[in-house]
Amino acid sequence: MNSLVRLVLPDVQDLLREGGPEDIAAALAPFHSADIAELIGELTDDEASRLLLGLAPQQQVEAFEQLPLPQQLRLVNAVGPEHMLHIIEAMSSDDRADLVGALPGELAARFLERLPAEEAKDVAHLANYPEETAGGIMTSEFVRLSPNMTVAEATERVREQASSMEQVYALYVLDDEGHLQGVVSLAKLVLSPATKTVGEVMYPNPISCSVDDDQETVMRKLRHYDFIAIPVLDAEGRMVGIVTHDDALDVAIEEADEDAQRMGALEPLQEAYFATNLVTLVRKRATWLILLLMAGLVAGSILRGFQATLQRTVALIFFLPLIAASGGNSGSQSATLVIRALAVGDMTPSDWLKVVRRELASGLALGVLLGFFGVGVAMVLVDDWQHVAPTVWLTLVCVVTAGSLLGSLMPLALARIGVDPAITSTPLVAGMVDILGILTYVLIAGLILEAS
Amino acid sequence: MNSLVRLVLPDVQDLLREGGPEDIAAALAPFHSADIAELIGELTDDEASRLLLGLAPQQQVEAFEQLPLPQQLRLVNAVGPEHMLHIIEAMSSDDRADLVGALPGELAARFLERLPAEEAKDVAHLANYPEETAGGIMTSEFVRLSPNMTVAEATERVREQASSMEQVYALYVLDDEGHLQGVVSLAKLVLSPATKTVGEVMYPNPISCSVDDDQETVMRKLRHYDFIAIPVLDAEGRMVGIVTHDDALDVAIEEADEDAQRMGALEPLQEAYFATNLVTLVRKRATWLILLLMAGLVAGSILRGFQATLQRTVALIFFLPLIAASGGNSGSQSATLVIRALAVGDMTPSDWLKVVRRELASGLALGVLLGFFGVGVAMVLVDDWQHVAPTVWLTLVCVVTAGSLLGSLMPLALARIGVDPAITSTPLVAGMVDILGILTYVLIAGLILEAS
Repeated sequence: MNSLVRLVLPDVQDLLREGGPEDIAAALAPFHSADIAELIGELTDDEASRLLLGLAPQQQVEAFEQLPLPQQLRLVNAVGPEHMLHIIEAMSSDDRADLVGALPGELAARFLERLPAEEAKDVAHLANYPEETAGGIMTSEFVRLSPNMTVAEATERVREQASSMEQVYALYVLDDEGHLQGVVSLAKLVLSPATKTVGEVMYPNPISCSVDDDQETVMRKLRHYDFIAIPVLDAEGRMVGIVTHDDALDVAIEEADEDAQRMGALEPLQEAYFATNLVTLVRKRATWLILLLMAGLVAGSILRGFQATLQRTVALIFFLPLIAASGGNSGSQSATLVIRALAVGDMTPSDWLKVVRRELASGLALGVLLGFFGVGVAMVLVDDWQHVAPTVWLTLVCVVTAGSLLGSLMPLALARIGVDPAITSTPLVAGMVDILGILTYVLIAGLILEAS
Repeated sequence: MNSLVRLVLPDVQDLLREGGPEDIAAALAPFHSADIAELIGELTDDEASRLLLGLAPQQQVEAFEQLPLPQQLRLVNAVGPEHMLHIIEAMSSDDRADLVGALPGELAARFLERLPAEEAKDVAHLANYPEETAGGIMTSEFVRLSPNMTVAEATERVREQASSMEQVYALYVLDDEGHLQGVVSLAKLVLSPATKTVGEVMYPNPISCSVDDDQETVMRKLRHYDFIAIPVLDAEGRMVGIVTHDDALDVAIEEADEDAQRMGALEPLQEAYFATNLVTLVRKRATWLILLLMAGLVAGSILRGFQATLQRTVALIFFLPLIAASGGNSGSQSATLVIRALAVGDMTPSDWLKVVRRELASGLALGVLLGFFGVGVAMVLVDDWQHVAPTVWLTLVCVVTAGSLLGSLMPLALARIGVDPAITSTPLVAGMVDILGILTYVLIAGLILEAS
């Protein structure tokens, strides 16, 4: 809740109890629709319904569009389908397709049959694209120009269509088959002589993406070129929509959240923390915890197998947490570096050899460094340090290096076969390195004790 | 490197060896400046310098602006200060201030004294704002209108200034003292009758941010309102610049990277993975690894202190990795959830009581669940399960719950005192929970063994 919303919430609740629709419209007129949407989020369904119906028509649509989907669904019920129809009709095409797709089948059909035929077709069409692709996040509303229009005619078209468009700053020049010929900005139109043709003033090599592109790819492209919007082409090269800068910002945040959650051993939540119910939260956490508990179990079984070694030199046990921590954390570090570098496009799977060289070098350097720490500690704390110190040193070098390699190669291998590398989840790498570390440790200890 | 750049790189290198400046200009004319910047990143300084000097003037400036700062500095040397002056003069104000601020003092002074007085003052002014604040990322170039201009006059001003502006879609209406009175979009200007005044058509309640605002706050605001740009006001309420949508996208990615790296036990890198040299990389990793090795050492010392208990029931040792993994990972999960919720504004420190209640409930549920797994394993694998099973169960319940609480409260506490919560770094939480877990385990084991 932002501070503005927090400030006015009590007054708005009073108004909803005591005021009429005109009072609501007047009181909320100066507010931005994003703030009204946030206000609605703090109200009961009944209050929200009264507030929505009190708003001016355009505010109604804009505020409703910005609500999270579950809340939109609740409001459709609270407000009633009759009143909702004109709001749904005026929504931007991407938000509308998401909402209608989420409505119960019967209700969705009722809405669709009352929408104008063209719009209903558009909803059905958009709903077919998978989520998290360009097609899934694009809007099909954009200003279409043709190359032989004059600048004056193009400006007139912007004038006519501006109110129903999400953005009118990038305008698209299509031929008769709908193939993208060029892009022209509104600024360029304003600057050009009225009698020139659109074909003369447009930028003729437009950069675009494909409906099937992953939303992260689209975001990276839009970011690379600093675009306000990027055109989306279908398999036949016809332009079917645009993805705008605000969609790209949402994608960047959403993907960063997903990566962070996967790296934090969580299945990604679909909703915000407080909006996720407790059972879902426990379920999303339990899977990974149980898996990682299993990894701990394997590590424990290894210890059990080497019971004899451990009982001969009890001091080895004190170094277990230190070795597990060093290997696991160096693995997490490398996995984090590679997952993020892949996500923002600084690295591709074909760079794997360069990565292996770097990780091998830095893993060895870190392993030797940490090894000396370990040895120092062993010499101070342990009586039997002649056996324990070399075991700890050698294990740390091996484990930190192996952790770095495993942590960097696992996400690269996944990216190679087309799986989102963040699902390696740094804790999984840490769990595997734990097992590897304990195995290395008891094996090296066994060898050194035997040799002595 | 994107696929387009990869494709043309060999040809461009040939051209640089054999072609003249006109050939370079002609060959690169159809390319977007973002791609030219990426091309330059793949060339030697000498090649880059020849390519830059071969470009058309506007492409020169746009491509140079998009290079990372270290490369800009190298190119200033390779190209020579004389040729660079006109590029630096034409750069957008925010990029220019960053570059001049990073140049060696003497060279910076030489550039500043040859810039027009107004521009030099602007550079000095911008350089004073701390990085990662609105002031540090804003540009001071925006179209200023006054409320009593007509729409026609305003459109004319856009025409005059368009070429030197980063964006001309959001236009700002200022009074004589420079206080922000309203905002009007270029679309609105195009749609309005030419004789109306700007004051009549502007949106009179502009949303803005302050020069001192953290860049993450600015990004969140811009995202909340889906703005193309947000105005920035100084302490006296005068408008001094704008932060644009592409800056916000960069901030979102940059902050997500920083969070991911901190959560992965790394000090944030300032540059991309491959651009960071190996010594820096090792240094950024070593600090945390040594700290976490210390935590492992503390855990080891606890084991040492309770040597007697462990020797009486050796089976306890096999459950150490499992207990450490469960506590540590549940701590990481909670920390991740809270850090991201704080970063995107879904949660504020004042929500702590709600968070404690949720984390207590889900921690207990997960602890009991994992506890039963642990007991099952103990009953199958361990002869002395009558002592070990209750110890493992009770420890898992305590450790998973404590992990969830600690993992969620640490970032909240840091956010409360104004520190970036991501610096808790989930591995630090995991390290602390490890120590706590082992302590709990040996204490509970001691009590149960004593009672029997």
